[in-house]
Amino acid sequence: LIGRLEEILGRVRDGSLQPAEAAGLVSALQDGSMGFAMLDLQRGSRQTLPEVVLAQGKTVDGTVAIVSRLHEKCGFAMATRVPDDAARALASTFPGGRYSALGRCFAVGDRMEPPEGEGPVAVVTAGTSDLPAAEEAAFVLEEMSARVERVFDVGVAGLHRLGGRLDTLRSCGAVVVCAGMDAALPSVVGGLVQCPVIAVPTSTGYGTSFGGVSALLAMLNSCSPGVCVMNIDNGFGAAAAVLRLLRGAPARGRV
Amino acid sequence: LIGRLEEILGRVRDGSLQPAEAAGLVSALQDGSMGFAMLDLQRGSRQTLPEVVLAQGKTVDGTVAIVSRLHEKCGFAMATRVPDDAARALASTFPGGRYSALGRCFAVGDRMEPPEGEGPVAVVTAGTSDLPAAEEAAFVLEEMSARVERVFDVGVAGLHRLGGRLDTLRSCGAVVVCAGMDAALPSVVGGLVQCPVIAVPTSTGYGTSFGGVSALLAMLNSCSPGVCVMNIDNGFGAAAAVLRLLRGAPARGRV
Amino acid sequence: LIGRLEEILGRVRDGSLQPAEAAGLVSALQDGSMGFAMLDLQRGSRQTLPEVVLAQGKTVDGTVAIVSRLHEKCGFAMATRVPDDAARALASTFPGGRYSALGRCFAVGDRMEPPEGEGPVAVVTAGTSDLPAAEEAAFVLEEMSARVERVFDVGVAGLHRLGGRLDTLRSCGAVVVCAGMDAALPSVVGGLVQCPVIAVPTSTGYGTSFGGVSALLAMLNSCSPGVCVMNIDNGFGAAAAVLRLLRGAPARGRV
Amino acid sequence: LIGRLEEILGRVRDGSLQPAEAAGLVSALQDGSMGFAMLDLQRGSRQTLPEVVLAQGKTVDGTVAIVSRLHEKCGFAMATRVPDDAARALASTFPGGRYSALGRCFAVGDRMEPPEGEGPVAVVTAGTSDLPAAEEAAFVLEEMSARVERVFDVGVAGLHRLGGRLDTLRSCGAVVVCAGMDAALPSVVGGLVQCPVIAVPTSTGYGTSFGGVSALLAMLNSCSPGVCVMNIDNGFGAAAAVLRLLRGAPARGRV
Amino acid sequence: LIGRLEEILGRVRDGSLQPAEAAGLVSALQDGSMGFAMLDLQRGSRQTLPEVVLAQGKTVDGTVAIVSRLHEKCGFAMATRVPDDAARALASTFPGGRYSALGRCFAVGDRMEPPEGEGPVAVVTAGTSDLPAAEEAAFVLEEMSARVERVFDVGVAGLHRLGGRLDTLRSCGAVVVCAGMDAALPSVVGGLVQCPVIAVPTSTGYGTSFGGVSALLAMLNSCSPGVCVMNIDNGFGAAAAVLRLLRGAPARGRV
Amino acid sequence: LIGRLEEILGRVRDGSLQPAEAAGLVSALQDGSMGFAMLDLQRGSRQTLPEVVLAQGKTVDGTVAIVSRLHEKCGFAMATRVPDDAARALASTFPGGRYSALGRCFAVGDRMEPPEGEGPVAVVTAGTSDLPAAEEAAFVLEEMSARVERVFDVGVAGLHRLGGRLDTLRSCGAVVVCAGMDAALPSVVGGLVQCPVIAVPTSTGYGTSFGGVSALLAMLNSCSPGVCVMNIDNGFGAAAAVLRLLRGAPARGRV
Amino acid sequence: LIGRLEEILGRVRDGSLQPAEAAGLVSALQDGSMGFAMLDLQRGSRQTLPEVVLAQGKTVDGTVAIVSRLHEKCGFAMATRVPDDAARALASTFPGGRYSALGRCFAVGDRMEPPEGEGPVAVVTAGTSDLPAAEEAAFVLEEMSARVERVFDVGVAGLHRLGGRLDTLRSCGAVVVCAGMDAALPSVVGGLVQCPVIAVPTSTGYGTSFGGVSALLAMLNSCSPGVCVMNIDNGFGAAAAVLRLLRGAPARGRV
Amino acid sequence: LIGRLEEILGRVRDGSLQPAEAAGLVSALQDGSMGFAMLDLQRGSRQTLPEVVLAQGKTVDGTVAIVSRLHEKCGFAMATRVPDDAARALASTFPGGRYSALGRCFAVGDRMEPPEGEGPVAVVTAGTSDLPAAEEAAFVLEEMSARVERVFDVGVAGLHRLGGRLDTLRSCGAVVVCAGMDAALPSVVGGLVQCPVIAVPTSTGYGTSFGGVSALLAMLNSCSPGVCVMNIDNGFGAAAAVLRLLRGAPARGRV
Repeated sequence: LIGRLEEILGRVRDGSLQPAEAAGLVSALQDGSMGFAMLDLQRGSRQTLPEVVLAQGKTVDGTVAIVSRLHEKCGFAMATRVPDDAARALASTFPGGRYSALGRCFAVGDRMEPPEGEGPVAVVTAGTSDLPAAEEAAFVLEEMSARVERVFDVGVAGLHRLGGRLDTLRSCGAVVVCAGMDAALPSVVGGLVQCPVIAVPTSTGYGTSFGGVSALLAMLNSCSPGVCVMNIDNGFGAAAAVLRLLRGAPARGRV
Repeated sequence: LIGRLEEILGRVRDGSLQPAEAAGLVSALQDGSMGFAMLDLQRGSRQTLPEVVLAQGKTVDGTVAIVSRLHEKCGFAMATRVPDDAARALASTFPGGRYSALGRCFAVGDRMEPPEGEGPVAVVTAGTSDLPAAEEAAFVLEEMSARVERVFDVGVAGLHRLGGRLDTLRSCGAVVVCAGMDAALPSVVGGLVQCPVIAVPTSTGYGTSFGGVSALLAMLNSCSPGVCVMNIDNGFGAAAAVLRLLRGAPARGRV
Repeated sequence: LIGRLEEILGRVRDGSLQPAEAAGLVSALQDGSMGFAMLDLQRGSRQTLPEVVLAQGKTVDGTVAIVSRLHEKCGFAMATRVPDDAARALASTFPGGRYSALGRCFAVGDRMEPPEGEGPVAVVTAGTSDLPAAEEAAFVLEEMSARVERVFDVGVAGLHRLGGRLDTLRSCGAVVVCAGMDAALPSVVGGLVQCPVIAVPTSTGYGTSFGGVSALLAMLNSCSPGVCVMNIDNGFGAAAAVLRLLRGAPARGRV
Repeated sequence: LIGRLEEILGRVRDGSLQPAEAAGLVSALQDGSMGFAMLDLQRGSRQTLPEVVLAQGKTVDGTVAIVSRLHEKCGFAMATRVPDDAARALASTFPGGRYSALGRCFAVGDRMEPPEGEGPVAVVTAGTSDLPAAEEAAFVLEEMSARVERVFDVGVAGLHRLGGRLDTLRSCGAVVVCAGMDAALPSVVGGLVQCPVIAVPTSTGYGTSFGGVSALLAMLNSCSPGVCVMNIDNGFGAAAAVLRLLRGAPARGRV
Repeated sequence: LIGRLEEILGRVRDGSLQPAEAAGLVSALQDGSMGFAMLDLQRGSRQTLPEVVLAQGKTVDGTVAIVSRLHEKCGFAMATRVPDDAARALASTFPGGRYSALGRCFAVGDRMEPPEGEGPVAVVTAGTSDLPAAEEAAFVLEEMSARVERVFDVGVAGLHRLGGRLDTLRSCGAVVVCAGMDAALPSVVGGLVQCPVIAVPTSTGYGTSFGGVSALLAMLNSCSPGVCVMNIDNGFGAAAAVLRLLRGAPARGRV
Repeated sequence: LIGRLEEILGRVRDGSLQPAEAAGLVSALQDGSMGFAMLDLQRGSRQTLPEVVLAQGKTVDGTVAIVSRLHEKCGFAMATRVPDDAARALASTFPGGRYSALGRCFAVGDRMEPPEGEGPVAVVTAGTSDLPAAEEAAFVLEEMSARVERVFDVGVAGLHRLGGRLDTLRSCGAVVVCAGMDAALPSVVGGLVQCPVIAVPTSTGYGTSFGGVSALLAMLNSCSPGVCVMNIDNGFGAAAAVLRLLRGAPARGRV
Repeated sequence: LIGRLEEILGRVRDGSLQPAEAAGLVSALQDGSMGFAMLDLQRGSRQTLPEVVLAQGKTVDGTVAIVSRLHEKCGFAMATRVPDDAARALASTFPGGRYSALGRCFAVGDRMEPPEGEGPVAVVTAGTSDLPAAEEAAFVLEEMSARVERVFDVGVAGLHRLGGRLDTLRSCGAVVVCAGMDAALPSVVGGLVQCPVIAVPTSTGYGTSFGGVSALLAMLNSCSPGVCVMNIDNGFGAAAAVLRLLRGAPARGRV
Repeated sequence: LIGRLEEILGRVRDGSLQPAEAAGLVSALQDGSMGFAMLDLQRGSRQTLPEVVLAQGKTVDGTVAIVSRLHEKCGFAMATRVPDDAARALASTFPGGRYSALGRCFAVGDRMEPPEGEGPVAVVTAGTSDLPAAEEAAFVLEEMSARVERVFDVGVAGLHRLGGRLDTLRSCGAVVVCAGMDAALPSVVGGLVQCPVIAVPTSTGYGTSFGGVSALLAMLNSCSPGVCVMNIDNGFGAAAAVLRLLRGAPARGRV
């Protein structure tokens, strides 16, 4: 949004746009009302992340309409938890869009410039079943121009797999750990790195995995201090948390 | 019980006891009826473990009476989850008894001869709060003449602590792992040893540890295959399971 | 894996393979990295069981690819919880494969030699609805060359059915008991045999069976000491636990 | 109440009481209003059981007042779940009262005549920890002049104990089974007798016994058809259910 | 079964069957083993109800095979929770069978003679959504030759509906009450009748009805003493409980 | 607060107070900051109820301090869930205070004038154990000058008790129903009256009453439409809801 | 119904209908018995809302039959939670019916006259996923001739959206707030308005939203006093509660 | 620890310490073994936080011994969840220690130098009952030399209270929000600030607050993206998470 705003203001400054017209454009820019939905177009500047569409539970038409409006207003739009039919409709509406089948995410429009000097973010999984949440986190981070290091399938049943990737983890500014079942991985990672660890429980497993509840509880009880926890399968939330910690602090000083 | 039975039958054979008297003694030996409780005096031969008294929920007098009867009939008696007042009463009734304050266990009478060639059993804890369950398991095992290796306070937040004890673990015939909170330790241990791993969730922690339920769920979902799980805080059950696997198989062949 | 390793080393010794070539082969042998999955090819030697593919939650293509890689590297591969479409794809890829429709398992490649003098393992069910978990356990055990005694449909509502099979149970080195609903069977079996009892709750029943949770809780509270519990429907885990106790102890002495 | 009513009417018939006085007495008899409680004095005739006072959660004074009122109006009063201090107060108020410390019940007044030809009721426990619920059921049944057979401590870990009491069970008109933890006993009993089986889960055990919930779930999922279940520790309810089935059917015919 | 047994023995007595042949027939009669299932053919005499097939969770072929075997051996067979496809297969295999689409039950073969002088049983529902459980109970009762009074749609939101049927309820030997959601009906009925009340929670409603758990909990906490509770939707179990109380008591005396 | 504000403004108007002084008084009046707590002094005008102190979980000194400040600022203060020691301290600090031991509430200061023409509110209980929540609701309502009709101990096990009070219920503007265990009463009441029904689950009972959860669930699933539900034991919340509906609607028209 | 009754009585008065005929009509009018369902035709006068059909869980034919009967008897009928196939059948049976696809509601027949001077009711949602419950509430209210103000998509993540609609909320006689996930909106609204707030948790979200349970719990624990809570997704119940408070109080005085 | 290590190495460099002596000192420095506990003395350098003692569940003597050892080895020691008796023992052992009665924390030894240019951290509470968790977080942060801004008692029932502190929140590098019951505050704060938000559910409230579970669930479902969640009452964990994000990133670049 801010980009579009600056563009309008720039055109006012260089005379290619009359102030009165500009006022109308700015006003339209901020008008998120769609009758059945009230888009939060200013959110980008408030939360380091623009409003993102949760496609699950919406009709295909509704999803396409909201993505279109956001794209039109802000020059960029992103949707998560996109069902297959909505993904097909989005792809045909926006041929230039980017889509992750594994992460069930869709984005269209220009990515921002990556912030200078920002370190990479590690996205880690215990097993292959944890990939959807991990790819959701990675997709959102990459769309927001963050650098992502994928460290997949390094669960604790075979500790040597994690050992081989430790240097990568220690070079990152934050680590997102996606794990289901016993969710032992975030505790082990939390004991090996100093940077923030965001744990995402995944709904893998069967029986007493209870759709991710066991993993969630293990993470909330992590014996490594300072491990933060997100909702089950909430890779998007983990990405948002990472963006808050990378970019959300006030300008003066480090924090 | 079998020992006492063999003693009686031996005395019949050598003539020091008349068959009729012997019949009475054997009958008394097997008479577990106490009015309010029916002791299972034959259990020792059926399950590799004699009947053990769960003192919790019994009156002090009831506990002392049952322990006395078992001791009288079988020459050995053991009680677990012994409250403080029952422990004091047992200690004063049986000055030669053995008591673990940490494991809340009491035993009196002669231990059996340790089986020949039986390897040690590791009892492992993640933290100091897991000690009561671990000591309960160790007490029962030692009363049954098993050798116990204690490997305490080696939780995964500092993996190097476990690393230093790996040789010990790998020399054992079974490993009992007591852990609460995220209970990540049994999965890590299960990935490092080949022998049976018996996991005991402990009721440590607060909030979402839910009195050990989180640890229980993590253990049931262990990513290391073949980890067996006991009830929360059930060190006694873990010991019983170890005795089944060390001694419970039929005599012919290895198993 | 070890078999393949020995074969390579044997060829080095007899001169049919150059050390440099052998080094490459061994390295390839240990290379479990597949981009989206990091296979744990050494697991066989660490845990008495090679890595087994959990097909549920994977794409058909992914399952076939991982099974193929494991088969190629280790000469043997096994998958559990195989959905129907994956089963068809595996069967057409590996015409010589072995498949259990009831246990939803698939295996391909050479079984190891059965260990000498190893006793049989009983796999017991309370009712016909418990068969899938039981057959999963039996399939895995038989693929690992263990002997299995099936004792099916002997639930406690008709105790005479169990009575007729007691001799079989008492001849076994371990008993796996699969039961749902009230899960009373493991407690009764645990009171009748001395060997290890591994209880597998099954997701049978309706209403308050809660997908196997009631059975799980009954098993965790078994009044027969030393009954070990696995995750709901986890026949595979029970087999893994049995293999740990049959074969996982260190070489010296009994244990 | 009906007894008192008949006494009044009898006195009217034999002339010792004037109809007008009788009307006042009957009216007072039916007046259950106590300001803070509205006693249900007619319940005895409606439900085969008079109103019984749940002393838990009431003040000592309140309990004594309600028991006194019931006793005065109906010639009989009973209280369950009586805390120690209330028990002492009741005992000193009603020196002729009957009290069960184990069942925490108190009764005072005349018992009714036992119904002719009514068979006994078995009250069964799995272990000694189940005694409080069992004694509550037995106390209430005996106060209502039913015959009770106590069959205690016959849990399934040692099936031979139950076997020895089978003839007793089969001679009874109903069986109340009190069990905690895995609650396997009602299923086994239900498979061995044809009469009604009322299962009472007890809050024994620890950890995953969850205060009796595991036992409750096992009972609701009993593999023996027709086992009825009561609330946890609700021996009183089991007695009430037995009285309904023994005495609650309409007069004509068997039922 | 007993009927068939008597027929065989009768033919022995009248000479139409040789004792040796009869022995074979009796033996076959009692042979419940089917390889994958061990039928409990004697159950009828042990529990007032023959073995009934739970069709849910079985293959169509398996259900037809077991029903056929039971029918052949006992002259009568019944299945509950029959899925649509199994119902069609049963109907085409047994053209003379009886089927309830609402109760999802199937039966074939001769019903027994109704016991003399046995009163009716009321089957009550709170709403129309409770009909499946109610019809399951009614079907089983009627197949066992009990008389059933249906009292449907009399929930407490309109108490006058229940009031109009009170005489019917009071004429019955037992009342089965099926209710979901708040399950207030059994408490109200329990306060109005003296006979046994068997409460069946149903999985109606949405949200916090939690598939019948709310109804179950309300029933277990009924303020009317002596209300017995079955598993959710377990109309079959309620019928079995009724048969126990109507017919399960020993022959001498009332009970 | 508004009363005090009007008094200040009145004194400004009649000249007895200078505007500058008044400004200071008004400012002080609105200053809720106490260092560790920020009182919401304006809440009275926003929510028809002034801020009420939840004494549970506060120190005795903290409770007395906050009540004193509220009393000083607003001329009235009320506290709920007051522990015994805090009640004694409040009573000695405010000798003119009003206290309900049963409802654990304390109030001090002048009650407002009762609104003209406002009908009574019924507070109903199923049993005597529900009195604390009911008295909490009644106390708060009466302190806010509402008229309260107490209808106690009219649970559905004896419907005639409720029948006798129906006219009272139907004369009220709202009914608060406090019930535990099966919580059948609100559904019955909701079917008999047309006015708003506010249901308060109480933490009575034992076992599966789960501290009021069973009652809560039954109420949320009430078969009488439009029954509103509060938190367990939250008589205060019920009173607040009643005040919203009696007095919270905008001034114009009925609503 | 009352309308139809008055019409009949009016025709009697004006002589167009004979009393005997009228008696038959009135009797038929009140005859809700349909064999499998007993309609509560008088409910309209008892509860401010006529009986409404819960179509979910009924067959299409059953739903159409009951709606037809209600329409025929009362001149108006309404159904909620109408599945798609039932909606199509209703629309073709009643071409003049009114249908909300979003709210899954159907109504046919004449609406009553709107009560004079009744203020509007606000129906508020936090997000677009809450629309089904909100539209169910709005549909029922509008069918009952209430005025509805829709205030949609004003969740607390962007408080400015709510701020812009505050005047609307404050002009209403009651506010229904539909929210899922964290359900923070009712607490914020409850702090900003004085009128009754009815909170409806919705089953939106994933993972730990647990189908609306998280939202339900947040609402029951609202820090704004007097927020009333309905079952999950129960927009119908919220409308019924609003109708009770708008119209259910006795005629004399305000309440 | 690193400070002590540098001091030793500095003394080696300046010649005041012999290398051999230094080796012994360093070795002792790293020796965490205490027999019953294995201290993780290196944790400070691995996780930005030294090992902190969880005093709850330890004996008073054990707590004092571990704190003493840590203090001796590292020059600093801290304990959380300190019971009253342990607090008294620590205070008398370490007269110079720092203690927070509200936060139940104790620390002794030299604090590190505050990092240059590090912004403040806001610790926010919804109500006064949330203070213990908040003070635990603040104590740990301040002991680690972070700057803390306390923003207390600003729950959403009165939004104006939060509004007045918004500038403070927006000047901080991270916000820790402690809230119980409906836990609406983190969602509102998360919508108003861009920096990381760490949510700590507190075990305040009663009934359905379920000891903080309701608050936890609301936080996990926050409609403001990127809110991280800790275990219930885990202020310590929140502080640790803040330290990870303030100080845990690798040295090069911003992250």
